[in-house]
Amino acid sequence: MNRRMIAYTIGRILIAEAALMVPAVIVGLIYGEADTWVFLPAIGAAAAAGLVCCLFKPQSTVIFARDGYFIVAAAWILLSVFGALPFLFSGKFPSFWDCLFEIASGFSTTGASIVTDIDALPKCILFWRSFSHWIGGMGVLMFVLAIMPLSEERSLHLMRAEVPGPVVGKLVPRIRDTAKILYGVYTGLTALLVILLLFGGMPLYDALCYAFGTAGTGGFGITNAGVGLYGSAYIEIVISVFMVLFGINFNLYYFILIGKAKDAFKSEELHVYLCVIAAAIAAISFNVYHLYQSVGQTLRYSFFQVGTIISTTGFATADFAKDWPAFSQMVLVFLMFTGACAGSTGGGLKISRIIILFKTILMEIRRLIHPRAVQIVRLEQKPVDYGLIRTTLIFFSMYIASLTVSTLLLSLDEPDFLTNFTASLACLSNIGPGLGKIGPTGNYAFYSAPSKVLLSLLMLAGRLELFPLFVLFNFRSYTGKVAA
Amino acid sequence: MNRRMIAYTIGRILIAEAALMVPAVIVGLIYGEADTWVFLPAIGAAAAAGLVCCLFKPQSTVIFARDGYFIVAAAWILLSVFGALPFLFSGKFPSFWDCLFEIASGFSTTGASIVTDIDALPKCILFWRSFSHWIGGMGVLMFVLAIMPLSEERSLHLMRAEVPGPVVGKLVPRIRDTAKILYGVYTGLTALLVILLLFGGMPLYDALCYAFGTAGTGGFGITNAGVGLYGSAYIEIVISVFMVLFGINFNLYYFILIGKAKDAFKSEELHVYLCVIAAAIAAISFNVYHLYQSVGQTLRYSFFQVGTIISTTGFATADFAKDWPAFSQMVLVFLMFTGACAGSTGGGLKISRIIILFKTILMEIRRLIHPRAVQIVRLEQKPVDYGLIRTTLIFFSMYIASLTVSTLLLSLDEPDFLTNFTASLACLSNIGPGLGKIGPTGNYAFYSAPSKVLLSLLMLAGRLELFPLFVLFNFRSYTGKVAA
Repeated sequence: MNRRMIAYTIGRILIAEAALMVPAVIVGLIYGEADTWVFLPAIGAAAAAGLVCCLFKPQSTVIFARDGYFIVAAAWILLSVFGALPFLFSGKFPSFWDCLFEIASGFSTTGASIVTDIDALPKCILFWRSFSHWIGGMGVLMFVLAIMPLSEERSLHLMRAEVPGPVVGKLVPRIRDTAKILYGVYTGLTALLVILLLFGGMPLYDALCYAFGTAGTGGFGITNAGVGLYGSAYIEIVISVFMVLFGINFNLYYFILIGKAKDAFKSEELHVYLCVIAAAIAAISFNVYHLYQSVGQTLRYSFFQVGTIISTTGFATADFAKDWPAFSQMVLVFLMFTGACAGSTGGGLKISRIIILFKTILMEIRRLIHPRAVQIVRLEQKPVDYGLIRTTLIFFSMYIASLTVSTLLLSLDEPDFLTNFTASLACLSNIGPGLGKIGPTGNYAFYSAPSKVLLSLLMLAGRLELFPLFVLFNFRSYTGKVAA
Repeated sequence: MNRRMIAYTIGRILIAEAALMVPAVIVGLIYGEADTWVFLPAIGAAAAAGLVCCLFKPQSTVIFARDGYFIVAAAWILLSVFGALPFLFSGKFPSFWDCLFEIASGFSTTGASIVTDIDALPKCILFWRSFSHWIGGMGVLMFVLAIMPLSEERSLHLMRAEVPGPVVGKLVPRIRDTAKILYGVYTGLTALLVILLLFGGMPLYDALCYAFGTAGTGGFGITNAGVGLYGSAYIEIVISVFMVLFGINFNLYYFILIGKAKDAFKSEELHVYLCVIAAAIAAISFNVYHLYQSVGQTLRYSFFQVGTIISTTGFATADFAKDWPAFSQMVLVFLMFTGACAGSTGGGLKISRIIILFKTILMEIRRLIHPRAVQIVRLEQKPVDYGLIRTTLIFFSMYIASLTVSTLLLSLDEPDFLTNFTASLACLSNIGPGLGKIGPTGNYAFYSAPSKVLLSLLMLAGRLELFPLFVLFNFRSYTGKVAA
């Protein structure tokens, strides 16, 4: 383990976090809010800690594979600890664990909230809350990669540890340029969304916050009424469309930009993603039709809810936990598992993994029927190598195991199974709302502090796709011994 | 596909079923019950169908791998169809689908029931219901193998298709002798249990029925009050112990019989099984202590419920669905997943698969930390080969996928998630009772006919460990083409 390099990298990330708190200060000053000052000690603390870590300037910038996982996990935990300080200093959150939960929910782009009255919070605090979605969506390491001079190999370690999805490739030979391109697409789409929302009559502040929440597929709202406050079908449809768009692999947007749109539209993962969305909308529409006044209204609400869950954003325009029939709720729970496409800001298992799992199961059944035939699983018309199948199966097993352990531990605190199970799933898949007591009009406030810590870890684990946190908590990481 | 051989084998199985209905007739005659006659047309139909199938005497007894799976799946479905006839002819069941559900529950040793008033059923019907557990527990194919002259290779195909567990080996060189030995152990333990129950003051009829339900780890009771009717701690403890014993790999009993007890007690799977039981009893005891009058009582009820769920039997002496706290319920749900040891009559994922899954996940995390080290997963001190790891991971994925699809489809019928999820799990793992509306004092009567058919298929799928049913329903099985 290259401890100096780990400390140095984390130091630079903390300094970046301090800088990223400044926009919230500006918002507070614009609105003349007294709570603006709470950011100053927070910025100071993050910057100071960052500078101290940067004193450990490493002699060698070599990092091992496990160092990449370690850096990512440690960085995100520290980002959450320091990022919670504005909430803590504002005095408007019941406890430090609540602050930690809320910011972990922000950075992991989950959007699960312990706030019972959003309207009572000052705009600068709400801005930091929403902006954390935008930061966490593309990943702060990607940001750091884009500006920090690291060698290719080391960058790849960091990128592989943080970027969601089973296959991480480079768009262009230099990773730094790949990171810049992806950030460019991300920023461009966010700006486009802000503009479209402004056209819909949203104030700039609202448009920015909802655009941050959509781009990062996070889901924090800025009022108790949520997106429905505006009573605008245009706004709801624009957000629905952009939630779905931010759930698409950003590599495809790059292909479109460089004139290779045909290749983008051939993507198998994109096809499956869109088909799943269409099938879910159809199934739900038939099931909820009796609740709405027209086919148009039914489709509008089905589209929004399906889009929000599959992209793992978590905004809501219908209280599906209270008002929708069981079958539609189960369709949404199924979408909570699938999640969005790899290489997007969405969470969940990811569509490409679902494709690999499904084809692997089919292959195994065929193997029993034709034991001597050679069976190959293909994704995007290329054979999937054996190591990727193995990793995908193991990832799926770890996902289920995490859900199981979490549901078991939460039952010590809360008796309702539906609540505990969907809370675990909604946090692990970075969605936010679930069913039972944590539906769209509910919140996570009632959980105990240990439960909130558990769910915060689950949120980070989900955002980082499990392995970094498991590596962090595995003590063998620290021995430095490499078995022959 | 060797169609003649498939038909011939199924024919012999149906004839065996007709013969196995005779004990129920004897019981009906002893008690002078009018309903005894319903068995005669059922015996006639099964025998006739069996004889017709046996007309297809095959020229070649060669069967392919897929034929083994096909025979097993088709045989068990037909066994259920014909086995349902006594229930149907008795007129005491609401519909044919209810009869099918009940007998599938019997043969698959699940013990889920649609009967709302067990006390109202005649003894001969209840005897057939319980006896089906004993038949299904060791597997009717094992019985047929023990008496039918098949070559080694073909026998192995059938045995691998029906015997639960990830590794099927032979105890002795000839499979026919292995089958005889296992049946011997099974019958011997059943007889011992009957004797111990008679000592406890149970009538012979009751002792036989409860012994059948325990040996097959089935769970059908013969009165509405269940095992608690006798108010006897001795009876409850004897049944608890034997439920746990029937969840142990029968190979270990063979080792004890031939004087290699040391090898038996070294079994890693046995150790893990017993540790899981101990840990579950401890966790539950602390959690439910406030409900009972003493430590002794607490342990008695914890032991019974843990034993019944992990062995996947399904008898109950406590209404854990209504009276127990959420955490204890979640511990039981966890045990519903794990199940018993491979090579026993228990269901669930099986302890050996849980061990492989757990170690494989640990191996993957270590691989990230030490990418160049060679990692091996060991079970019973032997390395687990790669194919077995792959099959175990895929099996686990198929288990979860089956649960997911079932819970989704049941939600069209029943709104409660806890009920649907645990019903799916309790049927797939062949336990019987779950939580919500299908707890120990509930039943499955309220489900619609399509839901009952779905759950029946789930029960059979679980008993046969998924692959045979998936092969049966995969139309490529029927093309007969072998890809090069």
